[in-house]
Amino acid sequence: MASSSLFCTCPLQAPVSAPKTMKCYTDFLSNYLSLFKQSPNSGSHSRVLFNVKSINREQSGRLLPRNRVQCQALDVDNKPSILIGNKFQLDDVIEAQQFDRDILTAIFEVTREMERVEKNSRSSQILKGFLMATLFYEPSTRTRLSFESAMKRLGGEVLTTENAREFSSAAKGETLEDTIRTVEGYSDIIVMRHFESGAARRAAATASVPVINAGDGPGQHPTQALLDVYTIEREIGKLDGIKAGLVGDLANGRTVRSLAYLLSKYQDVKIYFVSPEVVKMKDDIKDFLTLKGVKWEESGDLMEVASKCDVVYQTRIQRERFGERTDLYEEARGKYIVDGAVLSVMQKHAVVMHPLPRLDEITVDVDADPRAAYFRQAKNGLYIRMALLKLLLLGW
Amino acid sequence: MASSSLFCTCPLQAPVSAPKTMKCYTDFLSNYLSLFKQSPNSGSHSRVLFNVKSINREQSGRLLPRNRVQCQALDVDNKPSILIGNKFQLDDVIEAQQFDRDILTAIFEVTREMERVEKNSRSSQILKGFLMATLFYEPSTRTRLSFESAMKRLGGEVLTTENAREFSSAAKGETLEDTIRTVEGYSDIIVMRHFESGAARRAAATASVPVINAGDGPGQHPTQALLDVYTIEREIGKLDGIKAGLVGDLANGRTVRSLAYLLSKYQDVKIYFVSPEVVKMKDDIKDFLTLKGVKWEESGDLMEVASKCDVVYQTRIQRERFGERTDLYEEARGKYIVDGAVLSVMQKHAVVMHPLPRLDEITVDVDADPRAAYFRQAKNGLYIRMALLKLLLLGW
Amino acid sequence: MASSSLFCTCPLQAPVSAPKTMKCYTDFLSNYLSLFKQSPNSGSHSRVLFNVKSINREQSGRLLPRNRVQCQALDVDNKPSILIGNKFQLDDVIEAQQFDRDILTAIFEVTREMERVEKNSRSSQILKGFLMATLFYEPSTRTRLSFESAMKRLGGEVLTTENAREFSSAAKGETLEDTIRTVEGYSDIIVMRHFESGAARRAAATASVPVINAGDGPGQHPTQALLDVYTIEREIGKLDGIKAGLVGDLANGRTVRSLAYLLSKYQDVKIYFVSPEVVKMKDDIKDFLTLKGVKWEESGDLMEVASKCDVVYQTRIQRERFGERTDLYEEARGKYIVDGAVLSVMQKHAVVMHPLPRLDEITVDVDADPRAAYFRQAKNGLYIRMALLKLLLLGW
Repeated sequence: MASSSLFCTCPLQAPVSAPKTMKCYTDFLSNYLSLFKQSPNSGSHSRVLFNVKSINREQSGRLLPRNRVQCQALDVDNKPSILIGNKFQLDDVIEAQQFDRDILTAIFEVTREMERVEKNSRSSQILKGFLMATLFYEPSTRTRLSFESAMKRLGGEVLTTENAREFSSAAKGETLEDTIRTVEGYSDIIVMRHFESGAARRAAATASVPVINAGDGPGQHPTQALLDVYTIEREIGKLDGIKAGLVGDLANGRTVRSLAYLLSKYQDVKIYFVSPEVVKMKDDIKDFLTLKGVKWEESGDLMEVASKCDVVYQTRIQRERFGERTDLYEEARGKYIVDGAVLSVMQKHAVVMHPLPRLDEITVDVDADPRAAYFRQAKNGLYIRMALLKLLLLGW
Repeated sequence: MASSSLFCTCPLQAPVSAPKTMKCYTDFLSNYLSLFKQSPNSGSHSRVLFNVKSINREQSGRLLPRNRVQCQALDVDNKPSILIGNKFQLDDVIEAQQFDRDILTAIFEVTREMERVEKNSRSSQILKGFLMATLFYEPSTRTRLSFESAMKRLGGEVLTTENAREFSSAAKGETLEDTIRTVEGYSDIIVMRHFESGAARRAAATASVPVINAGDGPGQHPTQALLDVYTIEREIGKLDGIKAGLVGDLANGRTVRSLAYLLSKYQDVKIYFVSPEVVKMKDDIKDFLTLKGVKWEESGDLMEVASKCDVVYQTRIQRERFGERTDLYEEARGKYIVDGAVLSVMQKHAVVMHPLPRLDEITVDVDADPRAAYFRQAKNGLYIRMALLKLLLLGW
Repeated sequence: MASSSLFCTCPLQAPVSAPKTMKCYTDFLSNYLSLFKQSPNSGSHSRVLFNVKSINREQSGRLLPRNRVQCQALDVDNKPSILIGNKFQLDDVIEAQQFDRDILTAIFEVTREMERVEKNSRSSQILKGFLMATLFYEPSTRTRLSFESAMKRLGGEVLTTENAREFSSAAKGETLEDTIRTVEGYSDIIVMRHFESGAARRAAATASVPVINAGDGPGQHPTQALLDVYTIEREIGKLDGIKAGLVGDLANGRTVRSLAYLLSKYQDVKIYFVSPEVVKMKDDIKDFLTLKGVKWEESGDLMEVASKCDVVYQTRIQRERFGERTDLYEEARGKYIVDGAVLSVMQKHAVVMHPLPRLDEITVDVDADPRAAYFRQAKNGLYIRMALLKLLLLGW
């Protein structure tokens, strides 16, 4: 039940400008890890306690040299973390690995509340007066609009740029840290999309306001991971005992990798990997699942997997990963298509998911089936982001 | 008085993803047309009844297979449609042809109200809590700012992208329908600009929220058409009996084509076409006007036309239509200029209009004359869009 | 004490579309100048009285030919201008030269108030219902976000474009004046960034709503100048008697030029210029300072200057100014670096400032020192802009 393991796909970047903070964070990671090496199934679990980032708006005196993030690891009994009062704080959202089962449960509970927020109700105004900056170093309109909608659905305001590369362009040449220090002066929370793995972590280490990673290159996209798990619980009604078939590009897709990682936090999970040979799931995840006692198998038979699963999670084969080898791409992309035939063998309660955008790996006729959950999944992204914004700005 | 005719410049695109809806729409068009073939001047007229698009925010259960748009044609007596209670609904704004005289009258009445909305008054907050997505596949800053201003003047909020092409770019490759289904999850209404004729209609067929066409390539730009007609009524005080001179590029300009179409709904209208030979008004419009009993003539004498008209509607000769033939372009653009001389023969109550941007087809010295109505016309675009947003989101 | 002189780096552009207004403005400049040629230290000083731009939203009748700006020069006793009741009006913010000492004092007083505006307080809603258009002809994300944050921190709303060049692009080809007349119809205030010197002045001459210059090419960037002076007062506690070292690219940097100009309005100021030979401060500013009785000297010894100054104002050497001569650039940029050694000789109360972005002309280790004021300086830009928005939209 404990959520001990740390699965670092995104190595710490060095050097960063706030070494104290980073050192503290690194120490915490080591402590956290070692704690659970000692008692991996102890029935108690670790709880992270971050102090709230002090959102210092006064400027009436000089700022003291900053040492904002104090970390400590803390054993608690097997209570849901939400009961620990106001002490439990979400500080930044940087990577899937920062969430254990209890935090997920708590976030999902808030997410459910967000689904019930009605226009012009009191709860639709809880972030009134707050300002979110969407700092995008590359365009990702879908993700950006989802975050901005989330902020506005809660009464908050948005500063937006898809042109953040200008900060670090040849002519201007500013470091990410300097940009963050400027932008944090204008806003209460920063949602950042970057082309470099690890950029979100560097930003969070610098910022005195919360940072949400909206994707940093091949690194992490934690809100996508959260909405995927949330959608499974929402659609199927449970996470323990779930059977999920992950289909398509399992080598490069960060969504399926994060999903497999997060599902390992639940009991009695079974994962099927269905992919063309060239884009098979990598060994690090398989080894990790084995280590965590999660059952998994690889299969070349989508129909059989579909008939057994609660969730068929289809992904796009990304042409850009194949470079010149368009022959390999064409071979891979046509291999596992979710169509009417696949639907016909799926169970009545099962669903088809997809992180979108899709090309033709799910045929259009599937859309009309109630088991096509991918547009509802996209909508859940809105609710997850509303929940995170609330949690980061107002706390539990 | 009845508004029977359908003037389709924009053919139905096939295939679309919601065949039922489209079939229904097509059936309706046929019915509508045939109704009036039977009784073109019957004193009664057709009324379209769309059910409101169900803006389903609950997601608490599965969505039922959608069949959202039910259409029926309905004969009513010769009352203004605004008296039919709340049953008359504007669903989407896709093309000029969807408006008959009564709908125009009703929209203009709301538009007048919009002119009187004052800062921080109650009416300036009627769209509070609503979220508009401006989904622009090509930049059109003027149109976008006008819509966004309209939404904010009524207390609503905006999600904006001029980068929507990214959705359908080579790497991402999403269909318009998938994009719409994602964006409708984030917003309450979609304003779309697209480079392809018919795109707005496809979007509306897919979306469960209202769609406004902000221009789809060479196709339609219905809010421009509405603001043009509104401006004439606002400036001259009437539409029946109006004399309008359409000047400039009449072959390619969608604004003058739509304007001629809409003016045909009024009585005793006279239209003059003044254009260089290479960009003359096309036969389809002329035939249509003849069929509708609208008087029109072509003239090469701008001075004479200007002296007779209530409205001189000047347009820009578009260089991009001439390709390599810059000689033809130069010849065409210099031919009919509205300047002080033209003004001097115009009647005192008459006005000069222009859809903007202008180059030198109206000289700058004309601006100071009170009869120069083109900046007021642009401002009217704001009020028209406020009215449409109100109508689509709140109803009459 | 009087603020008589006019230091025009930005010549009047001709022709402009509102000749009357411009003529009036030019007359005023001459009067203003001549007044002070007569009595440069008279103890009384000139006050400018602009009528408020009439923000005509009615459109119920035709607009009268516009002659909106009436100017007159007015002698008053030596009272702070803020006491003159509501008659003193800030109309547009176009260039540093429009501010005299009293106006600066008054603006800084409002700026202090802005620092104290709290989330969801009444003062955070004073611009509710107002709409600001950020009309950027070139991207400047830092400046844009700062203005937009300022507007939203006061409850106002924003229309934004970094794509304003589209208005004047080859295909569309609209004049700046026409664009302004369109955009003023959508908004209550225009913040403009342009690539051409003098563009802001042209926009202000046309617009019936206030215009703020957010930088026009090599011309002016008055809000940067204001925030620089404000920061000095905020950090050091005074402006009279200040000792400032201006370091780096003094030939091309508009910030240091404007700063030197504005400091000349205070008494007993001493300015040190420290720069590589190729980018020395130009004679026009030096002559002006001499004329105004401001002490200045050039020095090649940064350490010595730093030890004497209250403010070390470092600037970036701009590579783009050197063209092919990267050798000269490399030589220039390495010459005067603010690092730990420089800090060690600075006085305890002194500060390091920088307009940002910085490259390596201030080393990163300086950031942790409380005397590093540049991020606070950036934050002050927010407060200055809040103050200007308040003043332009609501008055004193």
